[in-house]
Amino acid sequence: MATHKLLLLPGDGIGPEVMGEVKRLIDWLNAAGIAKFETDTGLVGGSAYDAHKVSISEGDMAKAKDADAVIFGAVGGPKWDAVPYEVRPEAGLLRLRKDLALFANLRPAVCYPALADASSLKREAVEGLDIMIVRELTGGVYFGEPKTITDLGNGQKRAIDTQVYDTYEIERIGRVAFELARKRKNKVTSMEKRNVMKSGVLWNEVMTQVHKREYPDVTLEHQLADSGGMMLVKWPKQFDVIVTDNLFGDMLSDIAAMLTGSLGMLPSASLGEVDVKSKKRKALYEPVHGSAPDIAGKGLANPIAMISSFGMALRYSFDMGDLADKVDAAIAAVLASGLRTADIKSEGTTSASTTQMGEAILKEL
Amino acid sequence: MATHKLLLLPGDGIGPEVMGEVKRLIDWLNAAGIAKFETDTGLVGGSAYDAHKVSISEGDMAKAKDADAVIFGAVGGPKWDAVPYEVRPEAGLLRLRKDLALFANLRPAVCYPALADASSLKREAVEGLDIMIVRELTGGVYFGEPKTITDLGNGQKRAIDTQVYDTYEIERIGRVAFELARKRKNKVTSMEKRNVMKSGVLWNEVMTQVHKREYPDVTLEHQLADSGGMMLVKWPKQFDVIVTDNLFGDMLSDIAAMLTGSLGMLPSASLGEVDVKSKKRKALYEPVHGSAPDIAGKGLANPIAMISSFGMALRYSFDMGDLADKVDAAIAAVLASGLRTADIKSEGTTSASTTQMGEAILKEL
Ligand SMILES: CC(C)[C@H](C(=O)O)[C@@H](O)C(=O)O
Ligand SMILES: CC(C)[C@H](C(=O)O)[C@@H](O)C(=O)O
Repeated sequence: MATHKLLLLPGDGIGPEVMGEVKRLIDWLNAAGIAKFETDTGLVGGSAYDAHKVSISEGDMAKAKDADAVIFGAVGGPKWDAVPYEVRPEAGLLRLRKDLALFANLRPAVCYPALADASSLKREAVEGLDIMIVRELTGGVYFGEPKTITDLGNGQKRAIDTQVYDTYEIERIGRVAFELARKRKNKVTSMEKRNVMKSGVLWNEVMTQVHKREYPDVTLEHQLADSGGMMLVKWPKQFDVIVTDNLFGDMLSDIAAMLTGSLGMLPSASLGEVDVKSKKRKALYEPVHGSAPDIAGKGLANPIAMISSFGMALRYSFDMGDLADKVDAAIAAVLASGLRTADIKSEGTTSASTTQMGEAILKEL
Repeated sequence: MATHKLLLLPGDGIGPEVMGEVKRLIDWLNAAGIAKFETDTGLVGGSAYDAHKVSISEGDMAKAKDADAVIFGAVGGPKWDAVPYEVRPEAGLLRLRKDLALFANLRPAVCYPALADASSLKREAVEGLDIMIVRELTGGVYFGEPKTITDLGNGQKRAIDTQVYDTYEIERIGRVAFELARKRKNKVTSMEKRNVMKSGVLWNEVMTQVHKREYPDVTLEHQLADSGGMMLVKWPKQFDVIVTDNLFGDMLSDIAAMLTGSLGMLPSASLGEVDVKSKKRKALYEPVHGSAPDIAGKGLANPIAMISSFGMALRYSFDMGDLADKVDAAIAAVLASGLRTADIKSEGTTSASTTQMGEAILKEL
């Protein structure tokens, strides 16, 4: 059995608690002889700043590059609101994405039937929802230069951010979306603002070409990002795979996640290119939710998004799709049994702490 | 009685039909001696392109600059998908905004009680909703330079858009938001992505200063734009006034509009600075909805957003708040009577064409 190297980066807030439940699962998989994971841990975000005055240390970056997959909790919190911009908690996450070249961010927005009523949307609008948002993650306004604040004198400052996209960046994220669509409902909706942004014009043009040239069997639709956002709110089930840039993807994937009512449940995967020699790809897995500093350390956090993110690692990094299915089934079964952490508690269900939820899922497995 | 000069720019798609109902209202106000409007009309968008190969002619731009207010329908449609970028329909609207210096876009998101069930959200989440989105409209990534597509050779192109904000641009839009809040629930939520964008850092800093210096009596909260979007979907009633940049404002105001279920009903105002001498300000009023080419020319369009936009003109350009209130009340009364255009039709209500709806509102007045 191959040994897989994992780097666990719990981060801040509820990160360490939810990561603890993944660690429990990994230990069990190792002990039961189902898989062989070698784990190491590191610091990222505010916790790295507190220890080393950086958002991630060079040592931990080296470990991340060496690992077969990085499992990431969450970063940030009001405690670090005043730290310098360059070492703010989010910088650690952004550096991991950029330096590992994790250009493809997969964010499934799935509505768990047991939780449909937790959505602010009507049940019929979200029940059975299953869409996949494919967000470009290493380009756009997140990393484009210049990115500066300049003092103009007279009490005036000028802030600049730059959105940059090259053809190859759009092509490769397009391919990820089309490949995924082929295994799903075979439809891709590309979203940009071509009526206002030159990057939207190029995005639209390149997606159209990739489609025509390589994926004519998949249905491709184009939507302006603003009206795409509206259609997500109005009738999300019209979508299958949505592909969009870094900033629109940030907004739209969060909104899609919130629609499901299952925010505390949703995982994500950030993937690099497959290396031609080793056939491996760099990858980082993280829950969609944030560090929730207000409930940190109280045993209230929902570990399902984190466990489900580890499930995505099994599927996308270690070719253990069957085991990933079992993890998903265990989560569904525990929910069906009525066990709930505080964020998804409703009448007639049973309260569980972070640990109790993690243990219950493991027991199901 | 002062004479007010209006320029009507119906635009494309359903624009001319809904503008027709505003014209009917204006004619009646003139005939009844309630007000004195002098109207002129012009072409914008695809209709201007068809006539002159531009998105708005210099002649019509001159009329717009000369008018006391511009009443704008909608632009765009698949017919003009292939026209050159510089003369695409949207360019006409963007030029009007920029050349008239209409930096403040006011987009109320109000849920009409009679229509609460049309929302994809649960009734309790949207009933009574009344928020105001204040969007910066002449800066940011919409107008920043460079804004280019360059051929890099090797089949590669590079697209660049630039987000630029200066201190004064953030200050003046902040003031608009704080002033509005004082007449409402006294709360402003500022949204940006300071964790990723330098413009977000400056935005946050300037809003905080304006608040401290000039509006300490108003409550100011800061939200990251992505989680702000989530909170809009989850529980929109937590907001009063939201102030945000051009691109986030585009996304967030559309999403807020869709939440209400009243998209065909929502107006907007785009305002310039008040001139110290004349005490006047440039202004453009337009419905939030688009040109809906699929239903154009069929008498199906809902004229309420357009009429309500004219109502905003009465309020913000002509100091006729009482008359604006009467227009709002007439719209509410007609809805309460059960009259509905196709977009908002539900069981047990009476169908109305564009014209019938316009006439009914006028009759109420
Ligand atoms: C933490 C932050 C930098 C990040 C982003 O903006 O990408 C987050 O919102 C996300 O979506 O993963
Ligand atoms: C038509 C388009 C240029 C415009 C925008 O992006 O601002 C529209 O979406 C709006 O919100 O008014």
